[in-house]
Amino acid sequence: MYKQIGILTGGGDAPGLNAVIRSVVRTATGRFGMKCTGIEDSFEGILGETHTMSLTQKTVSGILPRGGTILGTRNRGSFVKMVDGKPVYPELPIGEALANLDILGIEALIVLGGEGTLAIAEQFHKRGFPVIGVPKTIDNDLAATELTFGFMTAIDIATEALDRLHTTAASHDRVMVLEVMGRNTGWIALHAGLAGSADIILIPEVPFDFDSVVAKVLERESKGSRFTNIVVAEGAMEVGKHEMYQDTSELRLGGIGEYVTREVARRTGKETRCVVLGHLQRGGSPNAFDRMLGTNFGACAVRALASGETGKMVALQAGTIVTVPLSEACTNLKTVPVDGQLVRSARDIGITFGSPKEVPKG
Amino acid sequence: MYKQIGILTGGGDAPGLNAVIRSVVRTATGRFGMKCTGIEDSFEGILGETHTMSLTQKTVSGILPRGGTILGTRNRGSFVKMVDGKPVYPELPIGEALANLDILGIEALIVLGGEGTLAIAEQFHKRGFPVIGVPKTIDNDLAATELTFGFMTAIDIATEALDRLHTTAASHDRVMVLEVMGRNTGWIALHAGLAGSADIILIPEVPFDFDSVVAKVLERESKGSRFTNIVVAEGAMEVGKHEMYQDTSELRLGGIGEYVTREVARRTGKETRCVVLGHLQRGGSPNAFDRMLGTNFGACAVRALASGETGKMVALQAGTIVTVPLSEACTNLKTVPVDGQLVRSARDIGITFGSPKEVPKG
Amino acid sequence: MYKQIGILTGGGDAPGLNAVIRSVVRTATGRFGMKCTGIEDSFEGILGETHTMSLTQKTVSGILPRGGTILGTRNRGSFVKMVDGKPVYPELPIGEALANLDILGIEALIVLGGEGTLAIAEQFHKRGFPVIGVPKTIDNDLAATELTFGFMTAIDIATEALDRLHTTAASHDRVMVLEVMGRNTGWIALHAGLAGSADIILIPEVPFDFDSVVAKVLERESKGSRFTNIVVAEGAMEVGKHEMYQDTSELRLGGIGEYVTREVARRTGKETRCVVLGHLQRGGSPNAFDRMLGTNFGACAVRALASGETGKMVALQAGTIVTVPLSEACTNLKTVPVDGQLVRSARDIGITFGSPKEVPKG
Amino acid sequence: MYKQIGILTGGGDAPGLNAVIRSVVRTATGRFGMKCTGIEDSFEGILGETHTMSLTQKTVSGILPRGGTILGTRNRGSFVKMVDGKPVYPELPIGEALANLDILGIEALIVLGGEGTLAIAEQFHKRGFPVIGVPKTIDNDLAATELTFGFMTAIDIATEALDRLHTTAASHDRVMVLEVMGRNTGWIALHAGLAGSADIILIPEVPFDFDSVVAKVLERESKGSRFTNIVVAEGAMEVGKHEMYQDTSELRLGGIGEYVTREVARRTGKETRCVVLGHLQRGGSPNAFDRMLGTNFGACAVRALASGETGKMVALQAGTIVTVPLSEACTNLKTVPVDGQLVRSARDIGITFGSPKEVPKG
Repeated sequence: MYKQIGILTGGGDAPGLNAVIRSVVRTATGRFGMKCTGIEDSFEGILGETHTMSLTQKTVSGILPRGGTILGTRNRGSFVKMVDGKPVYPELPIGEALANLDILGIEALIVLGGEGTLAIAEQFHKRGFPVIGVPKTIDNDLAATELTFGFMTAIDIATEALDRLHTTAASHDRVMVLEVMGRNTGWIALHAGLAGSADIILIPEVPFDFDSVVAKVLERESKGSRFTNIVVAEGAMEVGKHEMYQDTSELRLGGIGEYVTREVARRTGKETRCVVLGHLQRGGSPNAFDRMLGTNFGACAVRALASGETGKMVALQAGTIVTVPLSEACTNLKTVPVDGQLVRSARDIGITFGSPKEVPKG
Repeated sequence: MYKQIGILTGGGDAPGLNAVIRSVVRTATGRFGMKCTGIEDSFEGILGETHTMSLTQKTVSGILPRGGTILGTRNRGSFVKMVDGKPVYPELPIGEALANLDILGIEALIVLGGEGTLAIAEQFHKRGFPVIGVPKTIDNDLAATELTFGFMTAIDIATEALDRLHTTAASHDRVMVLEVMGRNTGWIALHAGLAGSADIILIPEVPFDFDSVVAKVLERESKGSRFTNIVVAEGAMEVGKHEMYQDTSELRLGGIGEYVTREVARRTGKETRCVVLGHLQRGGSPNAFDRMLGTNFGACAVRALASGETGKMVALQAGTIVTVPLSEACTNLKTVPVDGQLVRSARDIGITFGSPKEVPKG
Repeated sequence: MYKQIGILTGGGDAPGLNAVIRSVVRTATGRFGMKCTGIEDSFEGILGETHTMSLTQKTVSGILPRGGTILGTRNRGSFVKMVDGKPVYPELPIGEALANLDILGIEALIVLGGEGTLAIAEQFHKRGFPVIGVPKTIDNDLAATELTFGFMTAIDIATEALDRLHTTAASHDRVMVLEVMGRNTGWIALHAGLAGSADIILIPEVPFDFDSVVAKVLERESKGSRFTNIVVAEGAMEVGKHEMYQDTSELRLGGIGEYVTREVARRTGKETRCVVLGHLQRGGSPNAFDRMLGTNFGACAVRALASGETGKMVALQAGTIVTVPLSEACTNLKTVPVDGQLVRSARDIGITFGSPKEVPKG
Repeated sequence: MYKQIGILTGGGDAPGLNAVIRSVVRTATGRFGMKCTGIEDSFEGILGETHTMSLTQKTVSGILPRGGTILGTRNRGSFVKMVDGKPVYPELPIGEALANLDILGIEALIVLGGEGTLAIAEQFHKRGFPVIGVPKTIDNDLAATELTFGFMTAIDIATEALDRLHTTAASHDRVMVLEVMGRNTGWIALHAGLAGSADIILIPEVPFDFDSVVAKVLERESKGSRFTNIVVAEGAMEVGKHEMYQDTSELRLGGIGEYVTREVARRTGKETRCVVLGHLQRGGSPNAFDRMLGTNFGACAVRALASGETGKMVALQAGTIVTVPLSEACTNLKTVPVDGQLVRSARDIGITFGSPKEVPKG
C-alpha cells in the first residue's frame, strides 16, 4: 500500500473534475489511510520548482458542486505546446518529474485528463511509476468508456439553450442555428437535438449538403411550421469536404455555425440567427449524474491503485466501472454510428441530418 | 402494417411521458403513415362511452419539455381500485375494451405504464390484440431495463434539494433529513446522496439502526463538522422490521423521514429538520436525458409494432433499446446490490448506510 | 475612519448573506483600507473565548453564489433562547461583548439579521458603539425596506415547485397543496401563486373558510378543469381563528398545509396531496437579483459607517438604498394590503383567497 | 364597457409576453365579461385578410411559463420595414386597420411592444380608437417604467453564464469576455456583472479605453488572481468613438465582444475567450418575477381600458403599476446613471468600468 499518492488534472475544463478529486481524496485518506497530494497545473506542478498542495477531507469539503478544478490546469508548455492551434508534444522531461515525485514522497499518481494528458501518464507507467488514469472528454468520444463526466451536463446546457431559442423561433418565424461542441463526433449535437426538439442536426459523421438543409426548412414552411431549429456540431462537414470548417483566411468569419447561418439565410431568404454555445458547455456546476459518475470514477481509481493496478484507466462499461489499459484508452475514437438506433430514431421522428440521400418528410 | 394505432398512459406521473407520446405520434404518422389515436385516462378511455383524441404532429407540437401526460391518467376504478392503500384488480372488462377498439378502428396499442398497467396490457396481448409496452417507473426498479425515463430528473431534483439543505445545515449546525421516493428500492436515495453530498443514506436494501446513524452524527461532530445530511428512501427499514414504516395508528405522525428526524433529534440533542420531497420528484419538465430516452423508447416501440412484434416491452440494455417479453417486464424487481460497486464507492468516501455492522470513519 | 470593523450574521438562513459579506469585505478593505474581521456564530463570537476570522479579498473569493453564511449562526443561547418555540431574550452581556470588541480592536460593527438580531445591534448603538444593520428576512415583511435579499430566490423556488405540481395535478385530476413560508405575511404565497398559476392562495392577511375553498374547487370542476392548485402560507388563518394553525396536541398532525389538504380531501372527495417546501426556500444559491441586492446593501452599509453614520439600517426605498433608524427597522411589519393592487389583479385573473365574501368565478 | 377587445404583440421576443396575454384574457373575460380576440403577427393581423383568434380561458391555459408569444410577431413590412438594419416606418394604413377592427367588432386594443410598436399604437389613439399599451423592452431602458418583464430573466441567464465561465476562467488562467444585450444602455451588463462576479463591466454610458481594461487584468495578475471576467454590453463604446462598434466592412469580424476579446488577448498575451449570449437572453420561460410582473401589467391594462382610459401605457413606478401617456412612454431613454449608487457600489467592490479616469485597485 502506498503511503502517499498524487493527483493532477490536465487539459480543458469539464464539469465533474472536482467531484473526482474529492472522491479520490476521501477514499485515499479515509478508506486507505494514504496521504494525498494535489499537483497544480497538470504535470507542470512536478517540474522545476514544484507546486503542490496537501489534500485533506477539509480541503475538498464543499467542492462537489463546483465547476473547474481546484488544482488548476495552466499549461506552461513543458509537456504540450500549441503550435498553429494544434498540440505539439516536446520531448518529455519525465526524468525530472520522477525525481521530483521521489523528493515529494509521492509513490503513485492518479491522472485526470483527455487523450494528450493520458498519453503522458502512460509514459510514467512505462518508466515503472504506478499510475491510474481517469478519462476526461466532454465530447464523450472515447471508445473505451460508455460515458465520461461532463457530457451529460453539456447536454443539459445545450438542451436548455434550444428550449430558449425554440420559443423565439416559433414566435418570430425564424431559423435558429445553435453551434455546440464536437470536433470529431456528434454526440452532444445528437443528444441535445433529440432532447431540445431540433429539426436538423449536422454532425461530423454525416456529411451534409445545403440542398437537403434548405429542403427541410421549406418543407416545414409548406406544412405550416414557419420556423426551424438547427443544431450544428463544430466539426460538422459539408459533403465533399474533408476537414473541419475553418477560417484560414484573414477574414475570421466565425465557425461552422456562422457559416451555416449565412448560407441558410441566403438560400431561403428567411431571418436566420446563430448562437455559439462555446465555453458555456464546459464550465459550471456538474449535474447530478456527472457528480455521481465522477465520484464513482474517483473511488474506483483509488481502489485500482490500492490493489496494485497500474497503467490502467477507469472506464464505464455496461453500467459498471472497469479498468482498461491506458494505451487502449487513447487510441480509439467513438463516433456516432450513422445507421445506429439513435440516428434511426431521430430520423423516424422527422429529424434530418442534411445528408443528400435524405428526403425530409417531417 | 396497421392503419391506426392507439396510445395510452397509466399510473403515476413521471417526467418524460409526453416525450414518448410525441415520439410515438411522429414515428407512427410521419415514418409509417399510420393514424394515431390517444386514449384518455388510461384504459378507462376505451370503456363505456370511449374518450379518445386524434393525435397529429400538430397536437404533439411543443409537448416535449412538458411534464405530466396530455392523455391524462384519471383512474375511475374499472381496471384498478385502491383498497386500503393497495391496488386491487377487479375482473377486467377486456371484452368490452376489445369491442370498443374494434369500433374505433384501433388495431394495436402502445401502453405506457408501470407494473400494474403493463400487467393489464399483457391481458390484451393474450387475447390476441397487438400491444407493445413502454416501462414507466420513476424508482428505476424494473429488472428488465437499465433505466426508465423520469429517474434522472428525479435525481436532479433531489440533488438540488440536498444542495439547498447543505448550506443551511452547514451554517446552522443542523442535521437535515431529506425523504425521497423509493418504496422498494433505494436507487434515487443512493444516486442523489452521492451527487448531493449526503453523509448518511438509508435505503430499503440495507436495514439501519439508530445507533449507527447517531454514531455517524457524533463522529462528524468530533471531527469538527457540526452538521450532517441524511437522505432517506421512503421504504427504508429499521433492523428487525419487515415492513415499510407506516402510521397505522390514528396519529399520522408522518412517514419515515419524520420518524428518523424525531429519533435523531431525541438521541443527539441536535436541531434536526426534515423535508419530504414527495410530488416534487414526479412532476415538471424532464431533463435532457429523460427527453432523449423517452423519444428513443417511443420510436423503438412503434418500430417494434410495425415489424410485427407484440406482447413485448421496450427496454434499455447495455445502452441499446431492445424488446423483452411483457411477462418478464413486470415480475422482477431490481434492487440496489448491497455489496455492489456504487454502494462500495459510497462507503469508501465515508457515507454510512446505518447498518449495525458499519463503523463510521468519515 | 475606522481601522478595523467587524461583521456578523444572525438568525435563520437566507440566500444572499454571503453576497453581503463579500461586498462588505471588498468595500471595507479595497475601497477604504480598513481591516475586516468576521465574528462567528452571531454575537456568540464576541463572548467568552471569542471566535473570529480575518476576512480578506481572498477569504471571500468564490462565495458570491453560495448559500448559507461563512460566518455561521450557531446560537448558544447567550443572547436568545427558544422557550416553547418562542424567542426569549436573556439580559444581554453587552458589557462583556464591548470589552471583547475593544480587545480585538474592532471599532464598528455591521450586523446582518432579522428583527431579533437587529434589536440586539441597537443595544450596542445605545451604548455608543458604532453599528449599521443589514435587514434579513426572507418573508419580506419589514416595513422599512421594499425588498430584502433571499425573498426573490424563495419565490423562484416556490414557483418552480408549483410548476412541477401543476403538471401532475392536471394529468391526474388532483388538488395539490403547497405550503410556503410566511408566518405573519403572505408575500411569498402571493407572488409565487401569481407566478406559478395557483387557483387559490391562502395568506394570513385574508382569513379563509373552507366553504369558499371548496366552492372554487367545485366551480373549476364544473367548468372542465378537474384539478386545482392551492398555495398556503404557513401563517394562513381560518375565519374566526386568531392564531397560526398549530398542533398543540400530542398528535403532531403537521402544519397548515396538511390541515388544508385533509379538509379539502374530506369535503370534496378528490385526491389531494400536500408538499411542504420548508427549508428548501431558505438555503442554496441566491438568484441574480438577490446577489445584486446583497452586494449593493453591503457596499452601502460600509459607506454609511465610513461617513460616520451609526444606529441605522440600510433599506431599499423607491429603488435606492437609504439608511433608516434601527429602531424603526424592527418595529413595523409590512403586511399584504388586502385591497391593494396585487391582490386585486390576482382576483381579476380568477384567483380566490378563500374569503367568505368571495364568490369564485374562475 | 367594451363588448370585445383585441390584443397584439409586436417586436422582438421577451420572456413574459404570454403571461401578459393570459392575464389580459382572464381579466377581460372572467372579471369584465368582455370577449377577447388575439390579433396575429402584430398589426399585420388587422390588415388585408385579417388573422385573428378567439382567446378564452381555455386558450391561455398553460401558457404562463412559456416563452415567446402565442400571437406571433411576424412582421410583413406593412408597418415597419428594415432598411440597412434600421427600422423605417411606411405611411401607416391606419384607415384600413380601423375599418377591419370595426368589421371584427373589436372596440379597443391592448398593445404589447417596444418603442416602435407603441408609437403605432398611439396613432390609433389619435384617431380616436381606445388603446392601452404595455411596455416591452428587455433592456429595461424606458424612462417611464422602473422595470419591464423579461429584464430579470435576462439577468438570470447572463448571471448563470458568468457562473459557468468563472470556473473555467479560474481553473485555466483565462480572460473570459461575455457579450450581453444593451445597445443603448448597460442595465443588463451592470446587473449581471454585479451578480456574476465580473471584474470589468463595459457599458455604453461609460466610454472605456483598453489601457484601463488591460491595467485591471494585469493588476489582478499581480495580486495572484490569474483570471479576469469581463462583461460587455453590445453598445459599449471606446473613448472617442460615438457609434456602436459595427462591422461596416465586408469582413464581419463579429461584434464588440469579439473586438474586446481580440484586443485584450493581443495586449496582455493571455488566453482570452468570448461568448456572445445573443438570443439566449430573449427566449424561453420567464422567471417568477417576470411572470408576476407580466400578470400584474395585464390585469392593470384591462382595468385601465374598462375604466375608460386610452392613449396610456401601464408602467411600474415606486412598486405600483400606474398609467402614463403613450407619448411620454416612447420618448425618454433610461440610461445607467454613471455616478449613481449601483455604479458606485460596483466600483467600491473593485469592479472597473474601463474609464480612463479609473485607477483599478481590485
